[in-house]
Amino acid sequence: MATTLISGGTVVSSTGRREYDVLIDGERIVALLEPGSTVLGSDLRTTVDTVIDASGKYVIPGGIDAHTHMEMPFGGTFASDTFETGTRAAAWGGTTSIVDFVVQYPDQNVLDQYHLWHEKAAGNCAIDYGFHQILSDVQDSSLSAMDELVSEGVTSFKLFMAYKGVFLSDDGQILRAFQKGADNGAMMMMHAENGAMIDVLVQQLIAEGKTDPYYHGISRPWQAEEEATHRAIMIADVTGAPLYVVHVSAKQAVEQIMSARDRGMNVFGETCPQYLYLSLEEQLGAPGFEGAKWVCSTPLRARAEGHQDHMWRSLRTNDIQMVSTDHCPFCMKDQKDMGVGDFSKIPNGIGSVEHRMDLLYQGVVEGRLSLERWVEITSTTPARMFGMYGRKGVIEPGADADVVVYDPNGHTSIGLGKTHHMNMDYSAWEGFEIDGHVDTVLSRGTVVVDDGEYRGRAGHGRYIKRGLSQYLI
Amino acid sequence: MATTLISGGTVVSSTGRREYDVLIDGERIVALLEPGSTVLGSDLRTTVDTVIDASGKYVIPGGIDAHTHMEMPFGGTFASDTFETGTRAAAWGGTTSIVDFVVQYPDQNVLDQYHLWHEKAAGNCAIDYGFHQILSDVQDSSLSAMDELVSEGVTSFKLFMAYKGVFLSDDGQILRAFQKGADNGAMMMMHAENGAMIDVLVQQLIAEGKTDPYYHGISRPWQAEEEATHRAIMIADVTGAPLYVVHVSAKQAVEQIMSARDRGMNVFGETCPQYLYLSLEEQLGAPGFEGAKWVCSTPLRARAEGHQDHMWRSLRTNDIQMVSTDHCPFCMKDQKDMGVGDFSKIPNGIGSVEHRMDLLYQGVVEGRLSLERWVEITSTTPARMFGMYGRKGVIEPGADADVVVYDPNGHTSIGLGKTHHMNMDYSAWEGFEIDGHVDTVLSRGTVVVDDGEYRGRAGHGRYIKRGLSQYLI
Amino acid sequence: MATTLISGGTVVSSTGRREYDVLIDGERIVALLEPGSTVLGSDLRTTVDTVIDASGKYVIPGGIDAHTHMEMPFGGTFASDTFETGTRAAAWGGTTSIVDFVVQYPDQNVLDQYHLWHEKAAGNCAIDYGFHQILSDVQDSSLSAMDELVSEGVTSFKLFMAYKGVFLSDDGQILRAFQKGADNGAMMMMHAENGAMIDVLVQQLIAEGKTDPYYHGISRPWQAEEEATHRAIMIADVTGAPLYVVHVSAKQAVEQIMSARDRGMNVFGETCPQYLYLSLEEQLGAPGFEGAKWVCSTPLRARAEGHQDHMWRSLRTNDIQMVSTDHCPFCMKDQKDMGVGDFSKIPNGIGSVEHRMDLLYQGVVEGRLSLERWVEITSTTPARMFGMYGRKGVIEPGADADVVVYDPNGHTSIGLGKTHHMNMDYSAWEGFEIDGHVDTVLSRGTVVVDDGEYRGRAGHGRYIKRGLSQYLI
Amino acid sequence: MATTLISGGTVVSSTGRREYDVLIDGERIVALLEPGSTVLGSDLRTTVDTVIDASGKYVIPGGIDAHTHMEMPFGGTFASDTFETGTRAAAWGGTTSIVDFVVQYPDQNVLDQYHLWHEKAAGNCAIDYGFHQILSDVQDSSLSAMDELVSEGVTSFKLFMAYKGVFLSDDGQILRAFQKGADNGAMMMMHAENGAMIDVLVQQLIAEGKTDPYYHGISRPWQAEEEATHRAIMIADVTGAPLYVVHVSAKQAVEQIMSARDRGMNVFGETCPQYLYLSLEEQLGAPGFEGAKWVCSTPLRARAEGHQDHMWRSLRTNDIQMVSTDHCPFCMKDQKDMGVGDFSKIPNGIGSVEHRMDLLYQGVVEGRLSLERWVEITSTTPARMFGMYGRKGVIEPGADADVVVYDPNGHTSIGLGKTHHMNMDYSAWEGFEIDGHVDTVLSRGTVVVDDGEYRGRAGHGRYIKRGLSQYLI
Ligand SMILES: [Zn+2]
Ligand SMILES: [Zn+2]
Ligand SMILES: [Zn+2]
Ligand SMILES: [Zn+2]
Ligand SMILES: [Zn+2]
Ligand SMILES: [Zn+2]
Ligand SMILES: [Zn+2]
Ligand SMILES: [Zn+2]
Repeated sequence: MATTLISGGTVVSSTGRREYDVLIDGERIVALLEPGSTVLGSDLRTTVDTVIDASGKYVIPGGIDAHTHMEMPFGGTFASDTFETGTRAAAWGGTTSIVDFVVQYPDQNVLDQYHLWHEKAAGNCAIDYGFHQILSDVQDSSLSAMDELVSEGVTSFKLFMAYKGVFLSDDGQILRAFQKGADNGAMMMMHAENGAMIDVLVQQLIAEGKTDPYYHGISRPWQAEEEATHRAIMIADVTGAPLYVVHVSAKQAVEQIMSARDRGMNVFGETCPQYLYLSLEEQLGAPGFEGAKWVCSTPLRARAEGHQDHMWRSLRTNDIQMVSTDHCPFCMKDQKDMGVGDFSKIPNGIGSVEHRMDLLYQGVVEGRLSLERWVEITSTTPARMFGMYGRKGVIEPGADADVVVYDPNGHTSIGLGKTHHMNMDYSAWEGFEIDGHVDTVLSRGTVVVDDGEYRGRAGHGRYIKRGLSQYLI
Repeated sequence: MATTLISGGTVVSSTGRREYDVLIDGERIVALLEPGSTVLGSDLRTTVDTVIDASGKYVIPGGIDAHTHMEMPFGGTFASDTFETGTRAAAWGGTTSIVDFVVQYPDQNVLDQYHLWHEKAAGNCAIDYGFHQILSDVQDSSLSAMDELVSEGVTSFKLFMAYKGVFLSDDGQILRAFQKGADNGAMMMMHAENGAMIDVLVQQLIAEGKTDPYYHGISRPWQAEEEATHRAIMIADVTGAPLYVVHVSAKQAVEQIMSARDRGMNVFGETCPQYLYLSLEEQLGAPGFEGAKWVCSTPLRARAEGHQDHMWRSLRTNDIQMVSTDHCPFCMKDQKDMGVGDFSKIPNGIGSVEHRMDLLYQGVVEGRLSLERWVEITSTTPARMFGMYGRKGVIEPGADADVVVYDPNGHTSIGLGKTHHMNMDYSAWEGFEIDGHVDTVLSRGTVVVDDGEYRGRAGHGRYIKRGLSQYLI
Repeated sequence: MATTLISGGTVVSSTGRREYDVLIDGERIVALLEPGSTVLGSDLRTTVDTVIDASGKYVIPGGIDAHTHMEMPFGGTFASDTFETGTRAAAWGGTTSIVDFVVQYPDQNVLDQYHLWHEKAAGNCAIDYGFHQILSDVQDSSLSAMDELVSEGVTSFKLFMAYKGVFLSDDGQILRAFQKGADNGAMMMMHAENGAMIDVLVQQLIAEGKTDPYYHGISRPWQAEEEATHRAIMIADVTGAPLYVVHVSAKQAVEQIMSARDRGMNVFGETCPQYLYLSLEEQLGAPGFEGAKWVCSTPLRARAEGHQDHMWRSLRTNDIQMVSTDHCPFCMKDQKDMGVGDFSKIPNGIGSVEHRMDLLYQGVVEGRLSLERWVEITSTTPARMFGMYGRKGVIEPGADADVVVYDPNGHTSIGLGKTHHMNMDYSAWEGFEIDGHVDTVLSRGTVVVDDGEYRGRAGHGRYIKRGLSQYLI
Repeated sequence: MATTLISGGTVVSSTGRREYDVLIDGERIVALLEPGSTVLGSDLRTTVDTVIDASGKYVIPGGIDAHTHMEMPFGGTFASDTFETGTRAAAWGGTTSIVDFVVQYPDQNVLDQYHLWHEKAAGNCAIDYGFHQILSDVQDSSLSAMDELVSEGVTSFKLFMAYKGVFLSDDGQILRAFQKGADNGAMMMMHAENGAMIDVLVQQLIAEGKTDPYYHGISRPWQAEEEATHRAIMIADVTGAPLYVVHVSAKQAVEQIMSARDRGMNVFGETCPQYLYLSLEEQLGAPGFEGAKWVCSTPLRARAEGHQDHMWRSLRTNDIQMVSTDHCPFCMKDQKDMGVGDFSKIPNGIGSVEHRMDLLYQGVVEGRLSLERWVEITSTTPARMFGMYGRKGVIEPGADADVVVYDPNGHTSIGLGKTHHMNMDYSAWEGFEIDGHVDTVLSRGTVVVDDGEYRGRAGHGRYIKRGLSQYLI
């Protein structure tokens, strides 16, 4: 097998940084070595097949985006990135693993859906991928499928407290699913918004002629998120299941998570780049229909209320443990524009899978996060949270050689015609400038992106059979 | 230089565990390697000078005890362990670094004391050692000495809110010292108990004839600890200094630390094994003068109030970040017995430097901590907290080869005539049984303890010139 | 009209106590006077029609029980007290006003039900009565009925988060009803338990053969109450409606109410005597089917968890504002016994309308409440909370002459054959001994109970047309 | 004795309002009567000596200002209002009782000082007055004097955590005084600011040339107030003493008080009009030396941090229980101007005794408080808090006839040449306009202010011998 030495860089882990070399043999890391050490009898730089010079750069474990929706069917259309286009864009951005959501809609069989998703992904992915399972019809057969899926490496299950008739489970169903999670050790994931409240508010706003994208945000107040977050925590408390709240955007929801964690519960929260950078006033409130670009749920929050700053702080304090994208792209044309005149018909979602590593690195540049915390929230914790640690999320002998060489002296301009490889006709991040650059990306030992060139291929990515969470206390 | 391969063990870090080999060349780790990998052209097991077989065992970074008082002068006597006996006992227990406290008493010159402590330690230590500086006389010269000490590798300064006339600084002095810490980046450490309250309570108890060791605990109620903890946090808030609260024992003090951390402050807390295992009722309340064995400050707390369980939980939730010993041993004869008939004359301190790794490992056995968290709170976080990370606290190429091979199938019985190498005529941990065993201890590449035999020497240990904290958010 | 002078007693208000005389003319209080004052030209004691000697006794405003269910239809049976028997028992116990619940079940017309309840009560009541309206079918016609009811003096509306198919409203319905309350000023009352969770737990327990009354408590954990309480608060926050949580029994629910109040919300909580005195272990857990006597919802809570003591404290701190009974009596024979072999079939309810004043007074005797707080939580606050103040809840010129002379030197033994006038074949309070006694009760100037004799009559009681809450901040 | 009937007004209590007449005989209220009632045989309006027509006006219990410093010696000068001028101004503003502070400075005898203050006040006061005792030298003789003072009607003792060498007690002294309070039932009052921190900050600011009045505020950050508040609470917790924190200005200090109250402690907080209306930026930050007018301690707080709004809210939620003035006036000329060039030399204090009732009434006009709450925080609660209830703070038969007729249709313009009767050469409230007016003020049955005319006299006011607090839970 081919050997590669990443030499001269500063390896950054979640706890520290140091200069040493990384030796890859085939798909895995086999050794970490003092730079230039001759203890092994020879200068490896002269004997390996390939040397990657990482001098002056950071060497980090490949990014893990634990929340994506490639080609997800929703409301008569599909998220615009396929597994092929979406994972390729991910690779461009230094992300070497995704965990995507298998969807069960009501009356669908869980295992059928699981196999269907395997078919969608197999042979198409540029990077490795795992699956979470969405349950939208919690009944006996779904519950027993949970055990089977855990043995298949699907160790996390997502439920919804919103989207009645589509995704929503009632509290009794949630309770039953959580009991199963407590029993088989799976992580229970929750879309925490009170859909019943929201549905009434949506209907009232539309009836009042408040149909612009901005009102999407108004229809989903922070109280709806705080409420559902607290409710999920209480059900977790009754059952003993570990709980992971997805796409947390309201500071009050963070407070609920923080309070549960302070009491010693296994409760976790994920946020997304959009909740760190974007706002109700600026993006959702853009003139005309422009705001549709940023219609997602939970919605962007009011900067005047301080949610964004609070979310950055929560990342520092580990009240929020990690950052995923909730990548769910829709084009403006033919997709987002279905909601002209009625915000509730705008497909919900933002595409960010390509930019997560960069956007978070910019937080390091701006002093909001330490370099180590960047690695932790984008790679190490996602790996631990979802049972991939050891193989993913760390640079260690035996781990998959998913490695990114990141240049702190490089620069990345995001936007159409600049950096933008996702299958979308706009960028939610148009105009963002990043003081850093993804130079080289290795997926299981193969260079897939190098020096502004894509060298990967569809089908390189393999399914990640995950274990139970390694992040529980 | 001599090469050593620790082979076949499970290396445990603060984030995970995996089987790989550790190659040591001289004093440092030079490579981590997949076991049996031949990528380097040969089987290292046949070429290195020494192979340590760690099969079935844990390989962990050596323990760091960041709070010891070797041969500390106090109340006319000295802590009974010298740097020689104390560091040797530490080595026995898998601790390869200590950070000891240089003492400035009133009217003493800080730098003189610092040099004096160097003299005490030099040539005597079995393992590496660093220094914190105690300031008991905050005045202009002391403040300017802080800058010089930082450049000498003493990057943490301890103040006291108790012990009037001996250690106590008033809030104005604390404010000034904290301002200096905010300025030069040093960590400010605090003994957080309200001494003025305590002094009155002590006087009243003695006057009432309540002179038994038990009343030592009564004289220092949790309110005195919570109060001082909150006060220190407020001063840290005004100044911007990072704050590290030593020997936290009251759950209410933890709540104050947690609350400050939730607000995003750089506030940290340390606890000690005694606050996890021992109690006011059982130990301090032992019949007659027996309780004197466990007179320390902060005092052991009432189990009926739930402090011990709360402290374990706080370790899990990272509301308390690490565990040190506050090792400050005094013998019963001629030392503790000075307080017969007056608990306030009992020298304050417990000796635990030898048992910290074992006692905390027992928490793993009992399901209170994960294996990874054990490594984190005993080694990785202490290293990061006090600016030693990279060199200490981690198994990585380039790090000092401070490594412990720990046997989860071994057993350790603590007590006199069993496991007890500290210079004390009793053990505070008599009768504790540990389901694990420190097999082999390497300090900077040298085996100092192996298979129940001490192979180290006084003078092997070197001074650790520390940097600023690597744990700030 | 007849004049009465209550003379020589200590009048107790919610803020203090003092000796003065109360002059009644017909149905109302017309003057308060210094005892023996001759400023009015004559000694009133010689000129009024009747003098009630209250020397050595407390003179207090008549009790107001704001939560009763006389002859409520539920599960195919009726609460065993009619308006006649229930209000007579209330009078015996020093309660001179009740607010009873008009029930709308699904598909029933709100106003029809309101008129039906007037028919039930008219001509039957011993004391004055008002109505709250229960809404179990929130739809447009129900919402518009709310406005009409407010003008009829029904200024409070109760919704349920439990009892699916019977009472339960979903969160969208609750939102709409709360919006109406925010608009017309009505108080929104909530039965706060998560019915969906509870229904699953009930089903599971029954399936496991756990059918004893004790499991009624297990099926309704505190998390279900805390959850619903928080949810109701969030909906109140979104809408701006004032919220009154009925029958709070879990300390965690109190914490939610306290926290909302600390943030300045108009959120209030009521508890009941059973949550202050009785427990899951002792009463619900009584041998065999005995526990059925105390099956009510929210359920009795575990004393081991400290709910009862916490509830007393919450009454002192005004985190809970008042005490009602949730009087809903069912006999053991033919009613409670429907649930033999299946706790979920036991009619829910406890009868206490007769004993509330005594049971709370015992709290004064035992040092849990001040005398003034007793008057506040049993009379003055209920009057203010529900828009009756001025006419009820206070001893003031112009107020209805609802007055109780309470003897702190008397004694009351509760139980069958002792003090028990409710239409029940058992007493939930059997064996309770009270160090005080209701001596004389006046309802609108008429003595209805005197010296152990009932002198009232069915039909004396009149409907109380209430205004909006006078307790909002 | 002369009889007076206050007729036709709306009597407002802390719990409600109603129209009835108040009959006064000599110094006391002897009856409350339905207006126009003939039950007493005649129309009182024709038989009493005087009828005060209160139609369309509020009739309230006279204001009680529980925190004044008449002619207080401080820093070589005296507060500019004597008991004569200060109490006269109070009467003008509808305040009929003050509680002033007897000062013990170090080395002074407590009882001597107490008698000295009696001499100052006797024969000079327009209204009734009580005394708190300041302890600045807690030693055995001071502690035993506390018992004697309680029997003299001085049932509250104030300590200081600031002003070293003048007022400050250390925590041991505070502990001892609080133990005495816990024992004899006295209320312990606290000036809660960390003086040691402040002294350093003051010194540093002056050294940096930051000498303007604005820096007075900077030198006393909210952390110093929160800190001391928490510390006082902890000492109260250890001892069991009730605690009353004076002049609370920081929202964080309120949080500490709220939290203690939530736990069931007898902890109370007072704020002052200046902390509700004025701010660091606007008043203290006025150009040049102008800000000196508002130099007081605790200082005015930053409006940008939201303290003022939080304080209003805390009054609504009863997290702060009452409003006093901390009346301590100094003239700009010859007094405040001692601090030109050094803010620390500006005498601390603001004069407001005349305007408290009006300023708080304006809060009612602006919807910040209910009318009932206005009466509660300005009269009823002060009376209960400090053991005067029954005699003061309420309109009830037997109470002192301290009554104010307040006209909600009147208007008051505050300022020099407008409404200003305090002995100050400026008004801290210049330009404030009040939508209400103090029409008539009775002190113990005597009209002292009527229709813009002062009809009182020095010496009318009598000493109030107070009992223990009636506000404890
Ligand atoms: Zn979602
Ligand atoms: Zn999603
Ligand atoms: Zn210490
Ligand atoms: Zn120590
Ligand atoms: Zn109910
Ligand atoms: Zn009910
Ligand atoms: Zn003060
Ligand atoms: Zn003052």
